[in-house]
Amino acid sequence: MKDPLQDLIQAYHELNAAVVEELWEEPSALEFMRYVAKNRPFVVRQAAIDWRAVERWDAGYLRKEMAGKEVNVAVTPLGNADAVVESPSGSKIFVEPFETSEPFDSFLDAVQASSSKGANDTSNARYAQTQNDNLRNEYSSLYRDVPADIPFARIALSQPAEAINLWLGNDRSVTSLHKDNYENIYVQIRGQKQFVLMPPIEMPCVNEQLLGKGRYATTSEKETQARSDEELIIERDANAEPVPVAIWDPDLPNQNPTPYSHLAQALRVTLQEGDLLYLPSLWYHKVSQSVGEEGFVCAVNYWYDMEFAGQHWVTSSLVRDVYWEEEMKVRYPDLDLDEEGSDEVD
Amino acid sequence: MKDPLQDLIQAYHELNAAVVEELWEEPSALEFMRYVAKNRPFVVRQAAIDWRAVERWDAGYLRKEMAGKEVNVAVTPLGNADAVVESPSGSKIFVEPFETSEPFDSFLDAVQASSSKGANDTSNARYAQTQNDNLRNEYSSLYRDVPADIPFARIALSQPAEAINLWLGNDRSVTSLHKDNYENIYVQIRGQKQFVLMPPIEMPCVNEQLLGKGRYATTSEKETQARSDEELIIERDANAEPVPVAIWDPDLPNQNPTPYSHLAQALRVTLQEGDLLYLPSLWYHKVSQSVGEEGFVCAVNYWYDMEFAGQHWVTSSLVRDVYWEEEMKVRYPDLDLDEEGSDEVD
Repeated sequence: MKDPLQDLIQAYHELNAAVVEELWEEPSALEFMRYVAKNRPFVVRQAAIDWRAVERWDAGYLRKEMAGKEVNVAVTPLGNADAVVESPSGSKIFVEPFETSEPFDSFLDAVQASSSKGANDTSNARYAQTQNDNLRNEYSSLYRDVPADIPFARIALSQPAEAINLWLGNDRSVTSLHKDNYENIYVQIRGQKQFVLMPPIEMPCVNEQLLGKGRYATTSEKETQARSDEELIIERDANAEPVPVAIWDPDLPNQNPTPYSHLAQALRVTLQEGDLLYLPSLWYHKVSQSVGEEGFVCAVNYWYDMEFAGQHWVTSSLVRDVYWEEEMKVRYPDLDLDEEGSDEVD
Repeated sequence: MKDPLQDLIQAYHELNAAVVEELWEEPSALEFMRYVAKNRPFVVRQAAIDWRAVERWDAGYLRKEMAGKEVNVAVTPLGNADAVVESPSGSKIFVEPFETSEPFDSFLDAVQASSSKGANDTSNARYAQTQNDNLRNEYSSLYRDVPADIPFARIALSQPAEAINLWLGNDRSVTSLHKDNYENIYVQIRGQKQFVLMPPIEMPCVNEQLLGKGRYATTSEKETQARSDEELIIERDANAEPVPVAIWDPDLPNQNPTPYSHLAQALRVTLQEGDLLYLPSLWYHKVSQSVGEEGFVCAVNYWYDMEFAGQHWVTSSLVRDVYWEEEMKVRYPDLDLDEEGSDEVD
């Protein structure tokens, strides 16, 4: 029997090359809108090479501009913020980082010291990654070094950026495969980022599971700042609703696959300093990184609200719903899931 | 149990009003591209009011410009070109019109005479509707009276019109519910058109059936022109592949419904002389018409190739495939369509 999801993924690949289109000039608003309409990514090499951020942001400059400021930091033992952790018994849990606030200066010290270029790479990993418009708040003294908005995106989408985020960490942090309900313009400032991208229709490949939630915490209850070498424990949140989490990793294709995972054709692109990526709404992405000369990685991204009208959102939900319907049949073959019994004599 | 197709249609309606957006100015190319991205229709009232076609195309002018020219005409007993005909035994067949060629002058005579404003409305219906770029071929002497292309669409879609078609007939002709693989700009010149529109995700509502094909033919084999009062018979084409045809009509919702038809929210819009409609690719549309002062209806449309890359085409196919999978289970409940038996004890 034909499998609609398999046909979907295969037809998509017949019509869409599994490469990120490479441009050497910013698109116009209209050209950008054509990519949004297709929900397809592109990279513009060297688009931001003249940004003051790309020209100026070395450790010394950042320390000077951020002197005396406290910043929010995600702390994890292995650079695994918002990631799946498997317990010794084999059960999986989605774990958020320990969040703390610390002086920028000591945060950057810890980032540089614990990168692969640093000495102290067994300590906890630290990542400034709040995604709450932090560049216009905590890091507002650096906001002047980037464009206030991305003109081609602002004009095409007819709205200003909803959030502008700064990401600062090192190569120990990996963002595991997930998707966002935003159109995303991602710009590399220092170091490199390796993106692994999968289109929304590959949802059946990523093995989404409903997992319980937890959070890294310090062992001392009174401690609000985790020392860089302190052990973190996972605190389960028994009250949290389970969240859907992709547990298949395109870089480890033989672990946790679904019957569809082998059909996936992940796109890979590395951003160099000054490169700009359009990451379309609802695309799955996994991000790892390499530090620049001074032992840190820094990027800025602009999030724009996605369009929920039209067919994009609802058909992505259909893919999920059809997949889950199949899954339920495989998991619970004895349950009569149809309204009319399919095994009755007519 | 949740029904993914029902959820799809309901979510679509929660996010998209069942109205055709009404503009009073042509969109820019970028504004148009936003509608294309959403796959949503709009009408621009009076957009073509200054076109020479709207100013000049009366019967006298058309006769003068087309003097001595032969044109292709679709002839049907009831104005039902490309429509389902039910045999006395109840079986359905998709019937194409008798196609003939005749002098423009006598064609227009027949159209005017057989309209509801004419005397002779029991004769065959005639409709010039070849959809083969006829305005730049058969009717090239009239092409100068319309824009060579629609700038906002040509620029947005980065391509010239693939076909520009003239439609000339009367109120006896109805185009039954169907969809096209084109982005369509439709401009009313004379008379009115009533469009009934349904988005691609409402495919489960339209009751698509695979039907055999036939064609109206004259009873006399040597006859290549059907006299206006001649009886036409249906010739089945036994060699033709069955074609998928929508047999539900949103204007007769109780006939031939599917379990999803009641969820449909058809959009309705009437084009007046000078109005322009953007009819997005893959939208179902049914078109009926009212004649202008001189007893004929005339429109022009511009077809642009649709984008098959991205998710639009493949997710529309998914809706169809999921619907058909459901249909097969309903029709053949005893067939074990799953690879693993769902009624086995585990």
